[in-house]
Amino acid sequence: MAIGRETIENILKLSNPKWKTGITRVEPNRLITRGYPQEDLIGNCSFPEMVYLLIKGEMPSKNEAKMLESVLVSFCDHGVTPPSTQAARIMASTGSPMNACVGGGLLAFGKHHAGAIENTMRVLQEGIKRYDGDIESIAGKIISSHREYGEKIPGFGHRYHDEDPRASKLIDVARKQECIGIHSELALTIQSILLEEKGIRMNIDGANGAILSDMGFDWSVGTGIFMIGRLPAIIAHVHEEKTREVPFRKLFDLEEIYYDGCDEPKKID
Amino acid sequence: MAIGRETIENILKLSNPKWKTGITRVEPNRLITRGYPQEDLIGNCSFPEMVYLLIKGEMPSKNEAKMLESVLVSFCDHGVTPPSTQAARIMASTGSPMNACVGGGLLAFGKHHAGAIENTMRVLQEGIKRYDGDIESIAGKIISSHREYGEKIPGFGHRYHDEDPRASKLIDVARKQECIGIHSELALTIQSILLEEKGIRMNIDGANGAILSDMGFDWSVGTGIFMIGRLPAIIAHVHEEKTREVPFRKLFDLEEIYYDGCDEPKKID
Amino acid sequence: MAIGRETIENILKLSNPKWKTGITRVEPNRLITRGYPQEDLIGNCSFPEMVYLLIKGEMPSKNEAKMLESVLVSFCDHGVTPPSTQAARIMASTGSPMNACVGGGLLAFGKHHAGAIENTMRVLQEGIKRYDGDIESIAGKIISSHREYGEKIPGFGHRYHDEDPRASKLIDVARKQECIGIHSELALTIQSILLEEKGIRMNIDGANGAILSDMGFDWSVGTGIFMIGRLPAIIAHVHEEKTREVPFRKLFDLEEIYYDGCDEPKKID
Amino acid sequence: MAIGRETIENILKLSNPKWKTGITRVEPNRLITRGYPQEDLIGNCSFPEMVYLLIKGEMPSKNEAKMLESVLVSFCDHGVTPPSTQAARIMASTGSPMNACVGGGLLAFGKHHAGAIENTMRVLQEGIKRYDGDIESIAGKIISSHREYGEKIPGFGHRYHDEDPRASKLIDVARKQECIGIHSELALTIQSILLEEKGIRMNIDGANGAILSDMGFDWSVGTGIFMIGRLPAIIAHVHEEKTREVPFRKLFDLEEIYYDGCDEPKKID
Repeated sequence: MAIGRETIENILKLSNPKWKTGITRVEPNRLITRGYPQEDLIGNCSFPEMVYLLIKGEMPSKNEAKMLESVLVSFCDHGVTPPSTQAARIMASTGSPMNACVGGGLLAFGKHHAGAIENTMRVLQEGIKRYDGDIESIAGKIISSHREYGEKIPGFGHRYHDEDPRASKLIDVARKQECIGIHSELALTIQSILLEEKGIRMNIDGANGAILSDMGFDWSVGTGIFMIGRLPAIIAHVHEEKTREVPFRKLFDLEEIYYDGCDEPKKID
Repeated sequence: MAIGRETIENILKLSNPKWKTGITRVEPNRLITRGYPQEDLIGNCSFPEMVYLLIKGEMPSKNEAKMLESVLVSFCDHGVTPPSTQAARIMASTGSPMNACVGGGLLAFGKHHAGAIENTMRVLQEGIKRYDGDIESIAGKIISSHREYGEKIPGFGHRYHDEDPRASKLIDVARKQECIGIHSELALTIQSILLEEKGIRMNIDGANGAILSDMGFDWSVGTGIFMIGRLPAIIAHVHEEKTREVPFRKLFDLEEIYYDGCDEPKKID
Repeated sequence: MAIGRETIENILKLSNPKWKTGITRVEPNRLITRGYPQEDLIGNCSFPEMVYLLIKGEMPSKNEAKMLESVLVSFCDHGVTPPSTQAARIMASTGSPMNACVGGGLLAFGKHHAGAIENTMRVLQEGIKRYDGDIESIAGKIISSHREYGEKIPGFGHRYHDEDPRASKLIDVARKQECIGIHSELALTIQSILLEEKGIRMNIDGANGAILSDMGFDWSVGTGIFMIGRLPAIIAHVHEEKTREVPFRKLFDLEEIYYDGCDEPKKID
Repeated sequence: MAIGRETIENILKLSNPKWKTGITRVEPNRLITRGYPQEDLIGNCSFPEMVYLLIKGEMPSKNEAKMLESVLVSFCDHGVTPPSTQAARIMASTGSPMNACVGGGLLAFGKHHAGAIENTMRVLQEGIKRYDGDIESIAGKIISSHREYGEKIPGFGHRYHDEDPRASKLIDVARKQECIGIHSELALTIQSILLEEKGIRMNIDGANGAILSDMGFDWSVGTGIFMIGRLPAIIAHVHEEKTREVPFRKLFDLEEIYYDGCDEPKKID
């Protein structure tokens, strides 16, 4: 019996697949995501449920879905002050397409910007894993270990706000949705100490980082969730730049630039 | 009376602002987005409402919000087949941070991939603006003008699916939410003709492009809305790659690469 | 006779390769680029020769190599005025890694910035292909067709310079290296007309676009060659930002931002 | 005497500049880079000299310029095996513009790919600063400290080559150009030990990292210099993909993808 070439190919391919994924099964006319047919999800599942399902692999409870919705909404926009938004608008001004402006904006989420959410989550998650004792004692150890290295605790204090209006609202929602757990307790305890000692409060990253940790998200997806929440604003800003400003506008005059390099005229040998 | 330097600076700055935006007013401890204080939005506004508010400048109706939620959910994931997902996972494999992997993935949304939603919206929106007559007549003109240039009509046919299971479900939701308007009628009429003549059906981009056009979104934000819907999956794939695969895995063996360049050994003079 | 599994795999793989390339043959301990062993190129081939070899598939003449070197050097830097440099520095300020800052900077090369070199090349290359007659006549047709649509001719005029000091020097080098051909003649003829009529001169993109066209580069690689020339400066700027400025510095004060959106306080229903 | 508004603006602007740079002074019709007028550099300065001047702030010696040229040439291309090249070609296939494909390709230079040059430079530079004793003793300490943490020493060993043909050639050029210094001696000493103990040799990153360290480049610009050298190839690959392959080609068949997620059909509540 002759074995067809196609059969051999299929056997070999299946035994040595290039890609392996547990997220979505793709077949002609059939898409199953985390076990759910996509046509069942459309119209029956909220966007935050979809986010949770994709990243965590299972459906959230109703409370968790409400909580995640508030987290995403809270990241919505901070005007044109964030470097990511400025970068995206600068790209938009040069005529770059929407996807490149948005992709470029995301590249400004370095460790000093948006990194705070991931860092907050890591500090809280590792603090609870590493240190023994009650919440007060863990909070004290986190604060002192940061002070020892002269580092700020991520998630507390803000360059524009003394009292970040989003942080306290998020904690209220978390209480209402019964999503307060050990990480939020820890963050609130740190806040009490910092507020008394230095007048510093929790910011939006602190609140979200604590709540997402309580919902079981690993710190490594923190920036990802922030990006989901912020993306609509970046798109709105790119659209605003493209529709309301002249293309390739001069953001700075030559007079606003200070040259402090070599002023002795040099000659090539 | 001496005028303080700071006063002069402030006068000059205000009269010649670097940035102008109508999206969010940022003041210390106060964030107003499209007229709404952010602490009121958190906990009271759904994520699709936030998307609509940011991009269109006003709150959607309840039906529109439900419709936009289904649109976003329908874009959720297509496994590892999309070039954007493959690119993001390749970057993840090399150890790039989450934001770079996601930003890089978005750069694969070129005109042949994800461009379809924007193109569908443009064809439908311009078709209705440009051509006179009833829906059948406009549909006929769109089809014949594409055939004349040997071009496929964006939003119809799919490289994997004869019957895209997401498209018909979306149209059902649009009917239920009373979001069917002239653009959807036009798309459905084009489908009837193509189905009879060539057996080709509307795909997810066709359905979403029609519905978003009926909701009043300009075609230029089409890719943007697609990106919001797809982002959670890209994040899930980056996370999957980083947690389940070895770093810097070899996606191809040398044997899978065919070199067809110069084989005559050359020497530098 | 039994055929080993590995043999079958290799036969199948070779007959259906995933990738095909004519640029470099990769074998264990052996790398052949465009026919040249890489160990022969290192130490014997200049960087501009390498650029030419990679993109055009063959070694340039000595004159062409010198010319391409001047082209690359001429793109070197324009301080912090270009949007690409500003974007890269903004990303650097947030702590993004070097490759993300540089990759992000490149995304600001939209059609209004750096697009000029590609557009110049296209206008010159298509002008010569499309129009009959002598150089003067083709120049006239290009000018009148742009005026008809109210468009500027790419490669002429500059937002900062009346007389771009780089353009005339490049033309001098091209004359010395005998790299002036029909595209440069055409660009110089356009300059004569625009200078007399409007006082507008060729800029660096005009000069480089003409010279690269005369060297046989297709317009579609114009932005690519510009990026090779500009990359060292972007790296220098990222390095300068990271080593001389505070991280996450505030580029704008709140006073420099003008909010012109909704000021009537709104409430969620 | 009345002071004009423009005067006040200029005074204020100069005293509070937005940007500060020592790289290039930009004035109308005048561009001075690191002290040299750009029209003097064009035609008189090689591209590697320009790279050195931009990044280090001064002209290299003739030997250093030759050495840097070899370094840049040695990074030229590795066919389609690098993830960065694969990512750039995948983006090119979807119709993304040249700058987005190249920018996206650079995002695949994560810590496991291209990171090696920076890591090599850091290990060598810090090894010499931190440890006392002769070269043999420092080499021994570097090897043992890596073994202690189960880490590979960056710059040694290669996934495709036992003997990287570029590494030994680079060391030969460095000897000829008298650019061998303490970092190269250290790298060669490490190679001797690893070769005897494990049969592992220096790779291209090891050789370049050592040589660039000896030329006084800080480790933080290592990836930058690699990107300058590799950029022409990425452009050549994007061009090859766009001109020789069909747009949006399927890189993988559905059969090559293995789904190992949930297979029990789930229902939304």
